[in-house]
Amino acid sequence: MNTNSGKVTLLSAGPGELDLLTLRAAKALAVADVVLLDDLANPEIVSLAPQARVIRVGKRGGCRSTPQAFIERLMRRYAQKGLHVVRVKGGEALLFGRAGEELASLREAGIAVEIVNGISSGFAAAAGLGISLTHRRHCHGVTFVTAHTEDHGEPDWAALAATRTTLAIYMGMRRIGSLAAALLESLPGHTPAAVVQWAGSIHERRLLTRLERLAADADDAGFGSPAVILVGDAIGESVQALWSQDAASCDDAASARAA
Amino acid sequence: MNTNSGKVTLLSAGPGELDLLTLRAAKALAVADVVLLDDLANPEIVSLAPQARVIRVGKRGGCRSTPQAFIERLMRRYAQKGLHVVRVKGGEALLFGRAGEELASLREAGIAVEIVNGISSGFAAAAGLGISLTHRRHCHGVTFVTAHTEDHGEPDWAALAATRTTLAIYMGMRRIGSLAAALLESLPGHTPAAVVQWAGSIHERRLLTRLERLAADADDAGFGSPAVILVGDAIGESVQALWSQDAASCDDAASARAA
Repeated sequence: MNTNSGKVTLLSAGPGELDLLTLRAAKALAVADVVLLDDLANPEIVSLAPQARVIRVGKRGGCRSTPQAFIERLMRRYAQKGLHVVRVKGGEALLFGRAGEELASLREAGIAVEIVNGISSGFAAAAGLGISLTHRRHCHGVTFVTAHTEDHGEPDWAALAATRTTLAIYMGMRRIGSLAAALLESLPGHTPAAVVQWAGSIHERRLLTRLERLAADADDAGFGSPAVILVGDAIGESVQALWSQDAASCDDAASARAA
Repeated sequence: MNTNSGKVTLLSAGPGELDLLTLRAAKALAVADVVLLDDLANPEIVSLAPQARVIRVGKRGGCRSTPQAFIERLMRRYAQKGLHVVRVKGGEALLFGRAGEELASLREAGIAVEIVNGISSGFAAAAGLGISLTHRRHCHGVTFVTAHTEDHGEPDWAALAATRTTLAIYMGMRRIGSLAAALLESLPGHTPAAVVQWAGSIHERRLLTRLERLAADADDAGFGSPAVILVGDAIGESVQALWSQDAASCDDAASARAA
């Protein structure tokens, strides 16, 4: 237990498998006094924090089991007791997930904050598909966008399509039909699209399709949250077999037929 | 030395400091036979690959010291000898940096490929500034785009601005004046903007400003490559002192005046 001033580490847990944590994250967990655990993070992460009191503060989209204000109060309270609090967030803490509000709350209370980056599920999804998100033959960038309208409002799908960047859409599975329809007003039906559920975890599942069949194929194959939806010509570079629902390893890709 | 079939690990070295590597990356390096080292990666990374023959294949923008085709041939040649080749790329391998072409080349040769994700400098830059890239009060996403026109063509700055996502612009320092001017046709001059040079390394430097002063301020303060340029209202949440050229730790942020 830290007897000096406390602090909060906002820690990115990455997409699931524990070896996708950074070395810095593992070090922070090893000395944590209190761990506040997001339910999108792999619960086995607590094995890396043997000294810590673990508090689960899951808050799935729509189902507010632990209100945001309460999580912020918990962090402040423990840090003000002089403890090292590690707030574990799934994926990359600085991409979606209300880090902005948590940082503001902690700073307002004068609490020292350290941020530890991690792997966001969109990158893990691309690794699973065996593709660059920004293949220079196809695009000049990638846009990470949330379809969770309650948090961020409705994205302007026409504007996003006009950028010709690869789109990595988070929290979109409940609205996959309407967002695909909106994108089809600006993009051709044959635009490559993919869904990767539980990207970067042992449960990873992948679907490779075209924009015009995205919603139907995802539904037929029983894909649900949490998943990343990828749309754009760079996705067509995946050599994973079309319609594959198996988490084939990248090593299989060498012998797979080009999509 | 692996006496069975060889393989290539496309490994993301992260933004600089070695503890920002993933545990998986450290494991891959520990058993590597050959390391092909990008010059944007921290050269100290070779200390994690004690068994490996290290080949430096730097290729800075514009200065093609090692042609891409030669790098691809080297990877194929060593893997075909049965060796475990680790191709180290700065940042996140699947974001810019020609991973798409390297993957295609390896698969064409029937070589097994593993991809290990990492931290891209845009996320490290946000951590340095102490901000979420997607604060829900300001935006619904973030776009990573390269201004390296030779590789990816000229981005459509008006289309990017219309998305109202945070923009994280890579390889833009040589064109900071023209890209800022292009963005000013669509975005207000007071739009928060930042430059983070050597993000996530011990040399990190930060500049926080407004879009209308971005190019002049970066020039005055002597900022150069490699750097990430960030533009968007979410950047205004940074509490780092304006005009700061010091790599102040996040812990200092609590006492800094809100920007």
